[in-house]
Amino acid sequence: MSHAPGAALSRRHSAVRDALHALGLDSLVVTAPANITYLTNFTGSSAIVIVEADRIAFLTDFRYRTTIEETRGTAHECPALELVVVEGAYDAALARALASGAPRRVGFDAASLTVARHNWLRASLTAQASAVELVATERVVERLRVVKDDYEIETLREAARRLSRVAASVADAVRRGTTEREVALAIDVRLRQAGFSRSAFDTIVASGPNSALPHARPTERTITEGDLVVLDFGGVYDSYCVDLTRTVSVGKADARVKEVYGAVREAQVCAVAAVGPGASRFAIDAAARDALSARGLGEAFGHGTGHGLGIEVHEDPRVTRRRPDVDAGDEAVAPGMVFTIEPGAYLPGWGGVRIEDDVLVTNSGVEVLTEGSTDLLEI
Amino acid sequence: MSHAPGAALSRRHSAVRDALHALGLDSLVVTAPANITYLTNFTGSSAIVIVEADRIAFLTDFRYRTTIEETRGTAHECPALELVVVEGAYDAALARALASGAPRRVGFDAASLTVARHNWLRASLTAQASAVELVATERVVERLRVVKDDYEIETLREAARRLSRVAASVADAVRRGTTEREVALAIDVRLRQAGFSRSAFDTIVASGPNSALPHARPTERTITEGDLVVLDFGGVYDSYCVDLTRTVSVGKADARVKEVYGAVREAQVCAVAAVGPGASRFAIDAAARDALSARGLGEAFGHGTGHGLGIEVHEDPRVTRRRPDVDAGDEAVAPGMVFTIEPGAYLPGWGGVRIEDDVLVTNSGVEVLTEGSTDLLEI
Repeated sequence: MSHAPGAALSRRHSAVRDALHALGLDSLVVTAPANITYLTNFTGSSAIVIVEADRIAFLTDFRYRTTIEETRGTAHECPALELVVVEGAYDAALARALASGAPRRVGFDAASLTVARHNWLRASLTAQASAVELVATERVVERLRVVKDDYEIETLREAARRLSRVAASVADAVRRGTTEREVALAIDVRLRQAGFSRSAFDTIVASGPNSALPHARPTERTITEGDLVVLDFGGVYDSYCVDLTRTVSVGKADARVKEVYGAVREAQVCAVAAVGPGASRFAIDAAARDALSARGLGEAFGHGTGHGLGIEVHEDPRVTRRRPDVDAGDEAVAPGMVFTIEPGAYLPGWGGVRIEDDVLVTNSGVEVLTEGSTDLLEI
Repeated sequence: MSHAPGAALSRRHSAVRDALHALGLDSLVVTAPANITYLTNFTGSSAIVIVEADRIAFLTDFRYRTTIEETRGTAHECPALELVVVEGAYDAALARALASGAPRRVGFDAASLTVARHNWLRASLTAQASAVELVATERVVERLRVVKDDYEIETLREAARRLSRVAASVADAVRRGTTEREVALAIDVRLRQAGFSRSAFDTIVASGPNSALPHARPTERTITEGDLVVLDFGGVYDSYCVDLTRTVSVGKADARVKEVYGAVREAQVCAVAAVGPGASRFAIDAAARDALSARGLGEAFGHGTGHGLGIEVHEDPRVTRRRPDVDAGDEAVAPGMVFTIEPGAYLPGWGGVRIEDDVLVTNSGVEVLTEGSTDLLEI
């Protein structure tokens, strides 16, 4: 398994410190696992990180101590990391670590810390007569994560290449008489054999009427002549997620299938073409949506056009309709952003089509990271 | 896929309402996915539930609308469910749903809701001049979930039976020359073939020196003569998690292996024997720990003896040492509780042993749900 080089971690730490400085904060408590991975390369399940001015305090328990100590002296060692071994409760260790320092303003991630943990932490600091002031922040690290650095882009490129190879091989797993669950298992096995540490989410194999459900789960339904089958799967490669969807026709596609498939494909091509530095993510969504509406399928496309990819499989930017009560983050996409383009059309009782690729915004336009034809495959 | 019968859901709703009454609350906002599954059978990724005196308000978006509507009239329909289709942001829909009702005291789960969501919700209710008072609660639903009902016990029994069959079959996957990753994939495939919808956690295959790491991840290391190999895996069956560990010896076990294995096995037997209605979970832990200490391996057992199983793979009760800064929940275990018993001994550089079974506390004692011998297997 590969990890971000120490120099990349250093740059990420500097960027966090710049953000803290702008917020008038002295340090940041990081509790979201994906943010911890981003700042330290650690991928275990239990840790808390405190980004201070001159060090990264890393709280973990004995189970992961070796993991941290093994990276010492390697190219992907986290710079200025100071290990604090937690015995007992993490939050108590965090309170001690915060209370022992100088009076200061400490940010925490309000979108990750729960009310219970926050209340406990505040009460504990008060009880210790600590002069630490806890300040709610949002998206300090996420805002950095949205633009990928060189290491991340290379990792996502390689992951997308591997995912495309899996996609090219899965058509032969979709056979008349096999169940959705069997096809999903075959895909998951190929993901692992292709070097992914796990599936990025529960693989979707949705056949016949089930294909009209965008978030269908694989069932015992048997693949049958005349089905449309939506195959939506992704993998985690060196901690980074990629995601791809293909829709295949079991047997000769009839006119209606060709029409709906063609409309979704056109929507996907239009949305990819709308991607470039400075493009509005709402405009990218509209490019897909308008293409479907022009074919009378606007109502059949109920979800967003895409989502960011990185350490999490759903992150910013969100390529959706403009919705004032939902939106966070900038409107314009920028070089280094990686996200999916996945329009679909879902017709209850009939079936559905979705086509998804992963794209990188470049300085001059767009690079499609996933490879392979999106021609309608008849099997 | 099977689901809890409507009558079981009804009893769970009544128990929640009793708990709310005792807290002086009129309703409860449920945001933790496992609690939502417990109260409604819903297993999708996006929903919010409000338990009211006379209905279950169920907020979800168009993607899951069909899922809910399909259960209407079936034996596992959620009683008194009123569907609210969310368009836009969930929290905005929640604020509208709360603000539209009568003035009342509304509990929320402080261990699930983040500070950011709570702040937003409070501000939104204030802006709508709502007379709703938000009250932090903890473990209202989790406290019920810790004692399994008949449906849950039957589901966990069947899941444990299936997991035991997988365990009986995996020894043949552990072969000299195969890698840890290959063995892990073989286990995951068998889990799916045995009817599990997914692995309950990332399968652990830890060989040779890696077996000294309790939370090792499968690597490219090749299984080699003389290795101890820890195999720790679990599956999700009809939404319920089971978990099992076996340690095998590659080739003839030497005296030291037999000694350490024997000590862990004795610790496991002692801990299982300590389980019964009213037993202290700390005493169950001590039974394992004392057995290992008596053989000079007390220091080699760094983790707790067990954890509850249910909709989540780690839930209450925690069978651990008594630690004042960590513990929540009652000390005594009670009939209907299901948890793991999994002592281990880890000797850095040498290797490790862990043996894990799943147990149910019965009215008269203990039922071991997982089956099969824990004799040391030499392959």
